[in-house]
Amino acid sequence: MGSTWGNALKISIFGESHGAGIGVVLDGFPSGIDYDEAFVLREMERRAPGRNKQSTARKESDLPQILSGIYNGKTTGTPICAVIGNTNTRSQDYQALLAQPRPGHADYTGSVRFHGFNDPRGGGHFSGRLTAPLVFAGALCKLYLKQKGITVGAHIQSIAQIQDTAFDDVAVSAEELDALRMQEYPVINPRALTAMLAAIEDARNDCDSVGGVIECAAVGLPAGLGSPMMDTVESRLSSILFAVPAVKGVEFGVGFGFAEYRGSHANDPMYLDENGQVRSETNNNGGVLGGITSGMPVLFRAAIKPTPSIAKRQNTLNVTTGKVEPLEIHGRHDPCIVTRAAPVIEAAAAVALADLYLEGHGYAE
Amino acid sequence: MGSTWGNALKISIFGESHGAGIGVVLDGFPSGIDYDEAFVLREMERRAPGRNKQSTARKESDLPQILSGIYNGKTTGTPICAVIGNTNTRSQDYQALLAQPRPGHADYTGSVRFHGFNDPRGGGHFSGRLTAPLVFAGALCKLYLKQKGITVGAHIQSIAQIQDTAFDDVAVSAEELDALRMQEYPVINPRALTAMLAAIEDARNDCDSVGGVIECAAVGLPAGLGSPMMDTVESRLSSILFAVPAVKGVEFGVGFGFAEYRGSHANDPMYLDENGQVRSETNNNGGVLGGITSGMPVLFRAAIKPTPSIAKRQNTLNVTTGKVEPLEIHGRHDPCIVTRAAPVIEAAAAVALADLYLEGHGYAE
Amino acid sequence: MGSTWGNALKISIFGESHGAGIGVVLDGFPSGIDYDEAFVLREMERRAPGRNKQSTARKESDLPQILSGIYNGKTTGTPICAVIGNTNTRSQDYQALLAQPRPGHADYTGSVRFHGFNDPRGGGHFSGRLTAPLVFAGALCKLYLKQKGITVGAHIQSIAQIQDTAFDDVAVSAEELDALRMQEYPVINPRALTAMLAAIEDARNDCDSVGGVIECAAVGLPAGLGSPMMDTVESRLSSILFAVPAVKGVEFGVGFGFAEYRGSHANDPMYLDENGQVRSETNNNGGVLGGITSGMPVLFRAAIKPTPSIAKRQNTLNVTTGKVEPLEIHGRHDPCIVTRAAPVIEAAAAVALADLYLEGHGYAE
Amino acid sequence: MGSTWGNALKISIFGESHGAGIGVVLDGFPSGIDYDEAFVLREMERRAPGRNKQSTARKESDLPQILSGIYNGKTTGTPICAVIGNTNTRSQDYQALLAQPRPGHADYTGSVRFHGFNDPRGGGHFSGRLTAPLVFAGALCKLYLKQKGITVGAHIQSIAQIQDTAFDDVAVSAEELDALRMQEYPVINPRALTAMLAAIEDARNDCDSVGGVIECAAVGLPAGLGSPMMDTVESRLSSILFAVPAVKGVEFGVGFGFAEYRGSHANDPMYLDENGQVRSETNNNGGVLGGITSGMPVLFRAAIKPTPSIAKRQNTLNVTTGKVEPLEIHGRHDPCIVTRAAPVIEAAAAVALADLYLEGHGYAE
Repeated sequence: MGSTWGNALKISIFGESHGAGIGVVLDGFPSGIDYDEAFVLREMERRAPGRNKQSTARKESDLPQILSGIYNGKTTGTPICAVIGNTNTRSQDYQALLAQPRPGHADYTGSVRFHGFNDPRGGGHFSGRLTAPLVFAGALCKLYLKQKGITVGAHIQSIAQIQDTAFDDVAVSAEELDALRMQEYPVINPRALTAMLAAIEDARNDCDSVGGVIECAAVGLPAGLGSPMMDTVESRLSSILFAVPAVKGVEFGVGFGFAEYRGSHANDPMYLDENGQVRSETNNNGGVLGGITSGMPVLFRAAIKPTPSIAKRQNTLNVTTGKVEPLEIHGRHDPCIVTRAAPVIEAAAAVALADLYLEGHGYAE
Repeated sequence: MGSTWGNALKISIFGESHGAGIGVVLDGFPSGIDYDEAFVLREMERRAPGRNKQSTARKESDLPQILSGIYNGKTTGTPICAVIGNTNTRSQDYQALLAQPRPGHADYTGSVRFHGFNDPRGGGHFSGRLTAPLVFAGALCKLYLKQKGITVGAHIQSIAQIQDTAFDDVAVSAEELDALRMQEYPVINPRALTAMLAAIEDARNDCDSVGGVIECAAVGLPAGLGSPMMDTVESRLSSILFAVPAVKGVEFGVGFGFAEYRGSHANDPMYLDENGQVRSETNNNGGVLGGITSGMPVLFRAAIKPTPSIAKRQNTLNVTTGKVEPLEIHGRHDPCIVTRAAPVIEAAAAVALADLYLEGHGYAE
Repeated sequence: MGSTWGNALKISIFGESHGAGIGVVLDGFPSGIDYDEAFVLREMERRAPGRNKQSTARKESDLPQILSGIYNGKTTGTPICAVIGNTNTRSQDYQALLAQPRPGHADYTGSVRFHGFNDPRGGGHFSGRLTAPLVFAGALCKLYLKQKGITVGAHIQSIAQIQDTAFDDVAVSAEELDALRMQEYPVINPRALTAMLAAIEDARNDCDSVGGVIECAAVGLPAGLGSPMMDTVESRLSSILFAVPAVKGVEFGVGFGFAEYRGSHANDPMYLDENGQVRSETNNNGGVLGGITSGMPVLFRAAIKPTPSIAKRQNTLNVTTGKVEPLEIHGRHDPCIVTRAAPVIEAAAAVALADLYLEGHGYAE
Repeated sequence: MGSTWGNALKISIFGESHGAGIGVVLDGFPSGIDYDEAFVLREMERRAPGRNKQSTARKESDLPQILSGIYNGKTTGTPICAVIGNTNTRSQDYQALLAQPRPGHADYTGSVRFHGFNDPRGGGHFSGRLTAPLVFAGALCKLYLKQKGITVGAHIQSIAQIQDTAFDDVAVSAEELDALRMQEYPVINPRALTAMLAAIEDARNDCDSVGGVIECAAVGLPAGLGSPMMDTVESRLSSILFAVPAVKGVEFGVGFGFAEYRGSHANDPMYLDENGQVRSETNNNGGVLGGITSGMPVLFRAAIKPTPSIAKRQNTLNVTTGKVEPLEIHGRHDPCIVTRAAPVIEAAAAVALADLYLEGHGYAE
């Protein structure tokens, strides 16, 4: 229940957008992993707002302060806690929203769930800012996975209706994923990127917002991780992906496209490659069969809804008057969060895959 | 890990397709719920094969034998165990598949995961037959939810490329869901059904199979169930939905459609209805905001891949020879499992929602 | 919550004493372990009633029927379900107890917990009979642990006030534990056994019952299993030991005796043995330091309360009259369950240690 | 696995003794509970060292800094994080211990568990200092339980061989528990206290240490909390009690004393009190029957071993030389931690009981 996730590796995320600080505890993280601070900070920066025109004008310093679990530059194996202070908050922007819960946002449901006591400032614990500690946790998990030869990466598959080139589902490589990580925008096709940025500017000019899709891949995973029936790889990944604010759909491999496939087309015929590895000619199943990794790249897509906080006038309930009244949301909000979502989706996947890997291999090896 | 799921309510599913029996233990199920045997058997029958031309010719008796947890016609509150015996198995059909793992199936991944010791007959623990105990568990959860005013139901949204009329996302009713439950095929539009059945026959004639999408709704849920960040309603539902064999995609509300929406269109403006209930004019978010129920119908769709076991010739690896060789799968297999998937998806949803409800309300009330 | 236990290995116990059957599901049990049926049945028999004068006159056949998870004589790695049918029940013995809950028993608390709907016959789910599936689960775990060089065994440390010789805390051996397992009564000192049996007969003649202590050891465990703070070896073992009906105390190593020790006496000084293994000269800490195994034998004791069901007249509340009235419990009850408790305590420990071992080593090795 | 505990309420403890900070995240804590800071600080102070001659000379400021989960003086319902900075550390005291692991301490087992990467300074994550965040969590849980009419309190039952008067197992009251909380030393009998303090001084003069027993009570718990078989009240309490460093034994009610009782003496006969409440004349079972609360006071005792860090010379293994060599531990260590253990044991119990209560009643009430 709540904001804790994982089996062999547990993460517990805390904090409210405008409170004293946000952060994460990783419990069960393996000992002896080098803490590559430059890598971690780069990951944090990829998610951080204010880096470019498309993201909010807030200048947050997302510098994580490590309180525990790292000693002499390596993980100790005991819980890692990182805290990120909150600064540059302008809480007055949100006062009016108590009376008029924002449509598409958690203002109303959060107030029911917590009997009116949750911190409403900046979305409180529901804020997208809470993805910063998730990215920190994901960065550490990526360092662990890298040691095992596993790389996780993502690109923006679509924004508005503009599609990027999809990953090659059998040939996507660690090098390609690492290169995307270094780009300002993780988009494969530069012309798609140009069109996406234009669509975002259109939305901004209309005081509106747009959604999109992130495609994510994990390469180097051994076959045989996961379980049938309840604890499938898809179950584990989806449960943490749907914990990311704004994610409303998750599909593996061909996903919803399977509805239009025939079995003879959908099946992935296997063969033995030159190294004696079992591989398949296609990878429609996205690297997971029967809930268990097949050794092919794990591939999935997550749908991201448009930012619900828009400046455009909306008519919605004022809970103090009981009437529907106009609402214009001011403050600093991204017209499109998809540009910042790729590192968050990667982070969620990295945490889930590190947990699965650890469950398969234990801490004693 | 494994075949166990749940927090306040735990289900543990066991069995192999051609072993002595399959079944389920429900631990934490509330005491004092009437065991409506006719309802439960009807649910089991909805999933059972051999009911019509579209499903396999196997005549299984899916009669659950209750070993514990029901006394004097009511649940005791202590674990409920139901066992379904396996009969009418023809294991010789599967012997050849050990050498040549079926593409799209768990034959290869299961063998890696369990070091070659898992029972391969009929798919073993990976068999679609294991959804029978899930349907049993779901039927009990439906009885509990019904007592709380909550109804779960589903229809076939599409098969091949033929679309059924979608649920009305704000007006879908318990009556409509109950009526669908009584139909031989849960399809809203009869002309769509006719076309779907024709498409299935086409596939059968081609020794092939087709996939589809199930749309599911839960009405009557109170606002305020679920948690932000990690234990969202979407996380819980998706984790059990992806445990159902053949599910490869899950989306809530508009889901992947959000990628093409603008925020001004995506947001669901709220109002107060005549009973003083907060409702929204649209329900693009599928009844979940910030991971928490809003009081609107919970709506989601699950993509079902085409049956991987097809009679059509496929070329795939023979692991004993290391060569790619032709494979024709004989035996009794559905050309389309989507016709039997609706009660399974409903059952998975009912288990997740009963668990969420119990977590919110406790056993002591 | 409820009757489910474990992390890497989950057991779910179900059934009521006079219902259709009792049993257990083991989820996460490793694949490829030989199912030594003779060993398992011998373990079941060690616990079974009616074997000698000290235990109840009920002749139950505790034969487990395996429904799943074992194939070709080996475990499959998918859930193992075993069911034990209930026969030879005389439910009329228990009818009067509904009005007059037995002191020291769960009749009253169970009725509050389950709002009066739990099955009261023979104690229902609270019956000591539910330890039979635990012994089955423990027997399987012992087979797994044996493969890893780990042996779990116990003896009756005391009954009434008669003490058996304690285990040698540094030198207790697998051979000694295996030998105890073959005895009718697992007592080291034959003269202590004679006195214990006499004390039990005294109690029987007085229509009364006596309690005792079981001492249990696990040898061969590697150093380094367990975790500090929350998931200590002691936490894991005690949580399953206190799940055994009638256990009211658990202590590790010197346990409560530490209250009278000085640190200089309590500490276990270490040395390197001839094989280069770190060992300690004493083992006051019972093989666990900082919550983690030290490589020395794990040693603990569990206190077992006297059977609460006694024929001797007791005055206690009649809930229908609201008055205190005399109660004489007839039926077949052990004057001492300690004689049958050793295999149950061993089983609980074996489950916990198998879970800990699996968590440390994973399923993929 | 690790340093996380709980079901409905999860606590995750982090930090190392000489690292940047220690702390705790409470996830699932109810919303709307008044944060009584004075109460919390008083609880922290009860545990803090340096308050009197019996405890270490370290002057730590155990002031918790609240990062999240409290807003406008009340809990928000989203995760509460509190951090306690580490100051006044003298790490050089511990350098030599790397070569020569302290007997009775986790130096050796921690190093095996974490492959040599754990922080050894001041015991790292194994330090008794980690009980400070547990006391913080317990203080919050006490505030919640108080609102439900439940009080948890403890006294020092024994130090060395000197016994305090035991709690009256049927009549122990909230007032008595609250009064003990305000004492410098929670001992009922002043003459026992005098003797205890003398015994501690004796040990200190001998460069040695002494152990003891804490007795704890919880009054006001409703009947019907907990579960039979696996998730008993005793299982839950013991699993968190054995997570407290130095606890080596836990017993409920008469506990190990049951071994010498007859059933006729052990059973607690019930009656209806003047308020129509079911109570029992004795409370040998410590308020728990069949794993479920009976409505009588919950009573248990925890054995605390003597501080293993003593100045007295010990001969033990030097892992760098492989030889047994003398060791004298300098630095600041309590000759008796029992005097500071009562608030820690209370805190652990409060967390477990709050979790049990929440599981029974849910968050939605």
